[in-house]
Amino acid sequence: MTQKGLGVCYYPEHWPREMWASDVQRMADIGLTWVRIGEFAWSRIEPKPGQFEWAWLDQAVETLADAGLKIVLGTPTATPPRWMLSKHPDMLAVDAQGRPRKFGSRRHYCFSHEAYKKECARIVRLLAERYGDHPAICAWQTDNEYGCHDTTISYSDAARQGFQKWLAARYDNIAALNDAWGNVFWSMEYAAFDEVDLPNLTVTEANPAHQMAFRRFSSDQVVAFNKLQVDEIRAKSTAPVIHNYMGRITDFDHYQVAADLDIASWDSYPLGFLEDRIEADDEFKNQYLKQGHPDYQAFHHDLYRAVGRGRWWIMEQQPGPVNWAPYNPAPLPGMVRLWALEAFAHGAENVLYFRWRQAPFAQEQMHTGLYLPDDSPNVAANEAKQVAQDLSQLQADQIEPARVALIFDYESQWASEIQPQGQGFDYFDLVFHYYKALRRLGCNIDILPPNATNFGDYTVIFAPGVVTLTQAQQKALRESGAKVVLGPRTNAKTSEFSIPPALPPNFDGLPLKITNVESLRPSAGVALEKGQIRYWFEHIEGEVTPILNTEDGRPAIVEKDNLIYCAGWLDETALFNFVGALLGAVDIPIEHLPDGLRRRETSDHVVYLNYAPIAISHRDAEIPPAGVHFVRK
Amino acid sequence: MTQKGLGVCYYPEHWPREMWASDVQRMADIGLTWVRIGEFAWSRIEPKPGQFEWAWLDQAVETLADAGLKIVLGTPTATPPRWMLSKHPDMLAVDAQGRPRKFGSRRHYCFSHEAYKKECARIVRLLAERYGDHPAICAWQTDNEYGCHDTTISYSDAARQGFQKWLAARYDNIAALNDAWGNVFWSMEYAAFDEVDLPNLTVTEANPAHQMAFRRFSSDQVVAFNKLQVDEIRAKSTAPVIHNYMGRITDFDHYQVAADLDIASWDSYPLGFLEDRIEADDEFKNQYLKQGHPDYQAFHHDLYRAVGRGRWWIMEQQPGPVNWAPYNPAPLPGMVRLWALEAFAHGAENVLYFRWRQAPFAQEQMHTGLYLPDDSPNVAANEAKQVAQDLSQLQADQIEPARVALIFDYESQWASEIQPQGQGFDYFDLVFHYYKALRRLGCNIDILPPNATNFGDYTVIFAPGVVTLTQAQQKALRESGAKVVLGPRTNAKTSEFSIPPALPPNFDGLPLKITNVESLRPSAGVALEKGQIRYWFEHIEGEVTPILNTEDGRPAIVEKDNLIYCAGWLDETALFNFVGALLGAVDIPIEHLPDGLRRRETSDHVVYLNYAPIAISHRDAEIPPAGVHFVRK
Amino acid sequence: MTQKGLGVCYYPEHWPREMWASDVQRMADIGLTWVRIGEFAWSRIEPKPGQFEWAWLDQAVETLADAGLKIVLGTPTATPPRWMLSKHPDMLAVDAQGRPRKFGSRRHYCFSHEAYKKECARIVRLLAERYGDHPAICAWQTDNEYGCHDTTISYSDAARQGFQKWLAARYDNIAALNDAWGNVFWSMEYAAFDEVDLPNLTVTEANPAHQMAFRRFSSDQVVAFNKLQVDEIRAKSTAPVIHNYMGRITDFDHYQVAADLDIASWDSYPLGFLEDRIEADDEFKNQYLKQGHPDYQAFHHDLYRAVGRGRWWIMEQQPGPVNWAPYNPAPLPGMVRLWALEAFAHGAENVLYFRWRQAPFAQEQMHTGLYLPDDSPNVAANEAKQVAQDLSQLQADQIEPARVALIFDYESQWASEIQPQGQGFDYFDLVFHYYKALRRLGCNIDILPPNATNFGDYTVIFAPGVVTLTQAQQKALRESGAKVVLGPRTNAKTSEFSIPPALPPNFDGLPLKITNVESLRPSAGVALEKGQIRYWFEHIEGEVTPILNTEDGRPAIVEKDNLIYCAGWLDETALFNFVGALLGAVDIPIEHLPDGLRRRETSDHVVYLNYAPIAISHRDAEIPPAGVHFVRK
Repeated sequence: MTQKGLGVCYYPEHWPREMWASDVQRMADIGLTWVRIGEFAWSRIEPKPGQFEWAWLDQAVETLADAGLKIVLGTPTATPPRWMLSKHPDMLAVDAQGRPRKFGSRRHYCFSHEAYKKECARIVRLLAERYGDHPAICAWQTDNEYGCHDTTISYSDAARQGFQKWLAARYDNIAALNDAWGNVFWSMEYAAFDEVDLPNLTVTEANPAHQMAFRRFSSDQVVAFNKLQVDEIRAKSTAPVIHNYMGRITDFDHYQVAADLDIASWDSYPLGFLEDRIEADDEFKNQYLKQGHPDYQAFHHDLYRAVGRGRWWIMEQQPGPVNWAPYNPAPLPGMVRLWALEAFAHGAENVLYFRWRQAPFAQEQMHTGLYLPDDSPNVAANEAKQVAQDLSQLQADQIEPARVALIFDYESQWASEIQPQGQGFDYFDLVFHYYKALRRLGCNIDILPPNATNFGDYTVIFAPGVVTLTQAQQKALRESGAKVVLGPRTNAKTSEFSIPPALPPNFDGLPLKITNVESLRPSAGVALEKGQIRYWFEHIEGEVTPILNTEDGRPAIVEKDNLIYCAGWLDETALFNFVGALLGAVDIPIEHLPDGLRRRETSDHVVYLNYAPIAISHRDAEIPPAGVHFVRK
Repeated sequence: MTQKGLGVCYYPEHWPREMWASDVQRMADIGLTWVRIGEFAWSRIEPKPGQFEWAWLDQAVETLADAGLKIVLGTPTATPPRWMLSKHPDMLAVDAQGRPRKFGSRRHYCFSHEAYKKECARIVRLLAERYGDHPAICAWQTDNEYGCHDTTISYSDAARQGFQKWLAARYDNIAALNDAWGNVFWSMEYAAFDEVDLPNLTVTEANPAHQMAFRRFSSDQVVAFNKLQVDEIRAKSTAPVIHNYMGRITDFDHYQVAADLDIASWDSYPLGFLEDRIEADDEFKNQYLKQGHPDYQAFHHDLYRAVGRGRWWIMEQQPGPVNWAPYNPAPLPGMVRLWALEAFAHGAENVLYFRWRQAPFAQEQMHTGLYLPDDSPNVAANEAKQVAQDLSQLQADQIEPARVALIFDYESQWASEIQPQGQGFDYFDLVFHYYKALRRLGCNIDILPPNATNFGDYTVIFAPGVVTLTQAQQKALRESGAKVVLGPRTNAKTSEFSIPPALPPNFDGLPLKITNVESLRPSAGVALEKGQIRYWFEHIEGEVTPILNTEDGRPAIVEKDNLIYCAGWLDETALFNFVGALLGAVDIPIEHLPDGLRRRETSDHVVYLNYAPIAISHRDAEIPPAGVHFVRK
Repeated sequence: MTQKGLGVCYYPEHWPREMWASDVQRMADIGLTWVRIGEFAWSRIEPKPGQFEWAWLDQAVETLADAGLKIVLGTPTATPPRWMLSKHPDMLAVDAQGRPRKFGSRRHYCFSHEAYKKECARIVRLLAERYGDHPAICAWQTDNEYGCHDTTISYSDAARQGFQKWLAARYDNIAALNDAWGNVFWSMEYAAFDEVDLPNLTVTEANPAHQMAFRRFSSDQVVAFNKLQVDEIRAKSTAPVIHNYMGRITDFDHYQVAADLDIASWDSYPLGFLEDRIEADDEFKNQYLKQGHPDYQAFHHDLYRAVGRGRWWIMEQQPGPVNWAPYNPAPLPGMVRLWALEAFAHGAENVLYFRWRQAPFAQEQMHTGLYLPDDSPNVAANEAKQVAQDLSQLQADQIEPARVALIFDYESQWASEIQPQGQGFDYFDLVFHYYKALRRLGCNIDILPPNATNFGDYTVIFAPGVVTLTQAQQKALRESGAKVVLGPRTNAKTSEFSIPPALPPNFDGLPLKITNVESLRPSAGVALEKGQIRYWFEHIEGEVTPILNTEDGRPAIVEKDNLIYCAGWLDETALFNFVGALLGAVDIPIEHLPDGLRRRETSDHVVYLNYAPIAISHRDAEIPPAGVHFVRK
């Protein structure tokens, strides 16, 4: 069993060497065991092309090693130095408006630029050669937060050329592409692959098949970029290779990138996410202002457990106010601890805080750390220390397998962006909507990739809105032995983004077809006995049994054997009722939780987490705000 | 008298030839008599430059002809094939930000590109030569929806050069242009026509006279583009030539384009328009979600009857949910029928549904048709069949001339966009506001172009906001024998977009001048006894008789002989009272209609249309939702 | 003592010469003494490069002089003629998206374009040579409204090259720049100054130090541009040189530009500003729709008194509806007079209306003047005449020194734009918030620049949010003898936009440090006994005395000796209470004013101005709407 540990992100190059020893000593004193270094340091490692300065990094590594700390060494490829741009002026990504995205911050590269990829392979090889067998280098991190700042997709010349090659490889001949995309429509037919441009700046929307191909290509470019680095590292090091994904980045397929990694990790900024990436009304946001959304972190924990095939970390954990959200409050006292303990309850191996000491300069100067710029401890330093002490009680806890599975699929997200059909329809939100309903019932949930075929012990599998399902996937679901909840939009498109000829869901064993689809303004829902269907409602025909009808008598949820199809986006009330009844019917234990309280079960404990700003009484326990209550099983 | 008929838009090139015969047979079975084909098919007619594939189109024409169906043959110029761009890389339109609008959808051409215009003339000539005397080709359609996707206005090099030539022709010498535009202001004087750039990307707003000239030029380019095609068709065919205008497209002068056509037509998407092109509050939009705005179609029917000088069609009629509005609900059962019958009541010769069968691929795959992608009938197929039966009862009905006329002028729309003066002031909305008030009173309305001079039998003529009126137009209105309602903003500008020296309205016979103009925030209206003046209020001086004063005693509506001037934008209450009193005063019969019910009178019937989602009792009739109630006169 | 006077802006080149004599006679008849001419007239002075037409301007000058009117002669550099662009095609400014800002309106130049600056020096020299000793030329105006239409900042090649030179001069060597900006962060280090690009279009935000340097550079370019003209004028003329600043333009340092001027002036458009530049709710805006914000003009008056080191004018005064705000209502009768009298009460030397006669053509045709386009007087002509009569009673009034000072600093504004940290945090709003609270208490207020060191008789000095304070400034404040109110964000950054190593406020004599900063969504304030802290709340540590705590017991306002630190953005209630108590404590007389009434004290009068739309009773006086009530002291 892997030892659970705490850590921190550290940038020795930002500070005088005189401070390093003291820093490292205090890290150890707090109880940290892991330190991430190296990411972003390219200009200090190779200040001029081919001229290297290793001494400082050697010393930093030794200083950390001497204190018994384990190092995650990051590759610096997210921040190519200024001289790189002089060497490769066309390496920049280009935005959808056709403007190069300039040097002066980070992630200023196009994933399709072959020469830059060679430069990356080179610097990673040098790092791996130098540190690959150092005993303190216990893990590697490739690049940093792929896709952050909307950087997956680039409309550069390099991307266009790469896309044309990718198309040629996929379709072999241009007639096949024309046929697959339906280019007879609007006379969009091509005579050669090099006639296919990127799908931006078209007069009206580009062919959705064209867009989907470009999204897949763009995702594949990230996979290839990452693999190049992994290959270089593996040639010289046996330490595991990790990438630190960013929350709610969905522009590339995280499962596919992770197929080349040993461990997944993600960067958890609960307060930043609440303000920046979650739609909710003022009342909700004010309620959770200083705690973050009570389900958002858990969702990502479960997602990255799937992405990492069981192995995952928090590589960056918010320690206090950050700098990048529309509003940046301070966490409620105790939340910095709660967030970490919740991660461990979901199976995290390690949690690293970002960052050791707040930098007084540059873009993130308002991003707090464990320490203040004046080198005194900030609030998070104390909470981290507390977590280190808590950890000793939790080392034996293991993941408790869930009886409920929820599928999350990146292509379905791209499909909903390419063709929302109703304004605001978002696949991520749909899946998260199910996740929240299940969490309110106290369930452990496993997230699965769409190509999962082994559904061993699951009792219920939710697969709302997975846009394309192969025959093999359908068969696996049908024969899983579990109740399988499909719809809306399930298998609504072929792999080439057209409507299946027999009409969706075209699901073997489910004698059903969707004839008409309605997208609805949010205030104009379809009434149910309890709650409403909102945003999306499909008209159903088929030999199935209704489970729920609309008030005006049309089928809303239907079933056939173990397959259940939900024809619309159920609102919170309707979904909660549906999911609750379903879990009850299959004897999955339900625990109704008070507002703001969440529950996670490990092998040894039931863990209650209080996300509310007030104390909560539940089952004889009084849990303070930001409190974590462990019940030994 | 022209036979009224139903039809459908059909893309045989999208389907295997094996399906054609069955398709055509079913069209006839439903009762359709017209089929539009050919638009968008350029890449199938001429797959490579100069290499033609006529066989498929020949066969499609014969298949339709054999079933006795009449064909509208569309020219394919809205979708130049990809090879066209290779031949003419500068043919693309350029948006206001200076970005070429790329290949990959449709309408990717600049109206000013001379070489592309030659290509269009060539392909139209070839079509006309091949099919011009075919007896089944009973009408032609030029291009498709000019101006759709904001394509009238282009900032390309071709447009700039065309504009400079256009200016030279209009002004003869640059001093005349400088003088006409007032270029002494801000030292904007030019020394030569080739110094005049397009009015985009200026530091602050460009001279409105400059902008208006560019808007007129842009409109003229559409007129010329269309005429080129009409001339080619007429050289080889006697079938009438039609264009299918799109709803609420106002960037070019539809009257002027239609001057070269035989028939006008428009594409009617009531639910798409409600969500996409009409401002209204949530309550209203939810009320009419599945029916469309109860006056919007009628307004366009009356407008295109004017544009077509009496002859007009619906070329595309919404059959079910579409793909392009922010929300895309399904029509209330019966509405697909109601919309068609309403069109016939307004004098439509033919109504064609768009489209025969929903295409499962490309951009419009979520746009329904009469048939589903799996070749089973969708709801609209049945309603179309019902309409075909209804039609037999209505063949004798003729247009009933109205006693009320309403002027609609495209230049006035451009003027309100160039210089709204108050945020949100929109000429279209002003005219539609009058139209709605008149419809609530049960009136038939004729829409007239601004250059109308024969006002034969009209009792009242409304001409709100026509920005420029020549002496001849003023005389014609003054001597019309009708009550003429002017203002606000009537004749507010000279033909060169300056304020008339004697101040607006500068209307012969109306001793009135507007000294100050106030634009008002929507929540800060000027109180009247009933209702308010909103958005816009003019301060009046002159020897006229007040009809209505504001609560604080300033003139709001004044009159002199048959001329009435309204000094502001009356809100719904005030306008309804004003219009009702006026019609009453001149003995035009008024019928107060319940919410959602509309009335249209033909030679033989009074037709009631229920746009409400509930049944309505009116004059001893109980009219169900989506019901059409005919009362024989 | 300078004689107070009225005047008008006049464009003789817009009108036939036959009208000039009559115009000038009527100006004198109304009681005007000053006329501004010449700005924007470059194309009439030099219609072709090097070819001059002086006769018309000579005649205009003589016509005005003959009537005894004093002339402000404007330089025409805000509107280079079209031929200038042919000579210098790269002279245009470039916007943040990289698009040249084209010819066709005004201000189409980049402040960094050296060749254009030479052209400006040349035309100004010629004007100064010709008119510099003419006795009627009693003042000069440089250019027009620097910075208007967002023109301070340009991303042109000229700007980039200028910026690189500016950096080289500031930092001497590139290592110093890297160190100052903290470019080790994200490997942003440069090897040479010519590698430093402008900070636009970066992938995510550019380094704030980089941004601040660019803002300073951009401001310096305006200063240099202005100085070039001043130098040319001074070489030939002893008349004072003025620039007309525009309201709420803060992109360059007005104090620094004014250091080269004799007099400051600003252009006052109260109704335009209310709609266009002030955030307030509908109720407030409707209340002051026709009067303008009751504190906005006064704030600018006091600001430009500081900018002009005591000497200031209104160069353009709104006379009626304008053309450029979202809504453009007419002033309440009397307001045109009130605005002018308020300016005089704040020490204005002269007030000029903009403009004499409404031009019927070009961009400002909907901007009213004293006269209508048909040459009849508009409302403002009469009110101006009244002001001329009022003035005779006020000639002796002098500025009454205030006991309250408020610091306004342009760099702090740039800092809040570069790094708001909380959405909507705006330094201008913060300062104006204090100004409004003080005005509600009836105070005279002096605005001071941040580098003020002589605080002679002030009893209280407010310096909220001044982002950087030198040791000298701190000392001056500390030793001023006044109560000094600091915070939030005071001295939050070093001069290189990093956090002071000892943490803010790092203020000598104030043993305080800010550990954490919270930015808050507007609806989630921190409760105080009365009111709330909103938007921004700092966590304080230090040996200081709390004046006010939050409801949950954290320090909100603290003091030490004469220094007071406010740790958050107080809402209106909290600020009013705090300021009121503070003024009371130091015996500054307070006069609670009814809503809408404002008070200003001169040497001889207490002046009450009624901004409310209703009459107000106050201290035995009944003041009608738009009324000005003088109480002789």
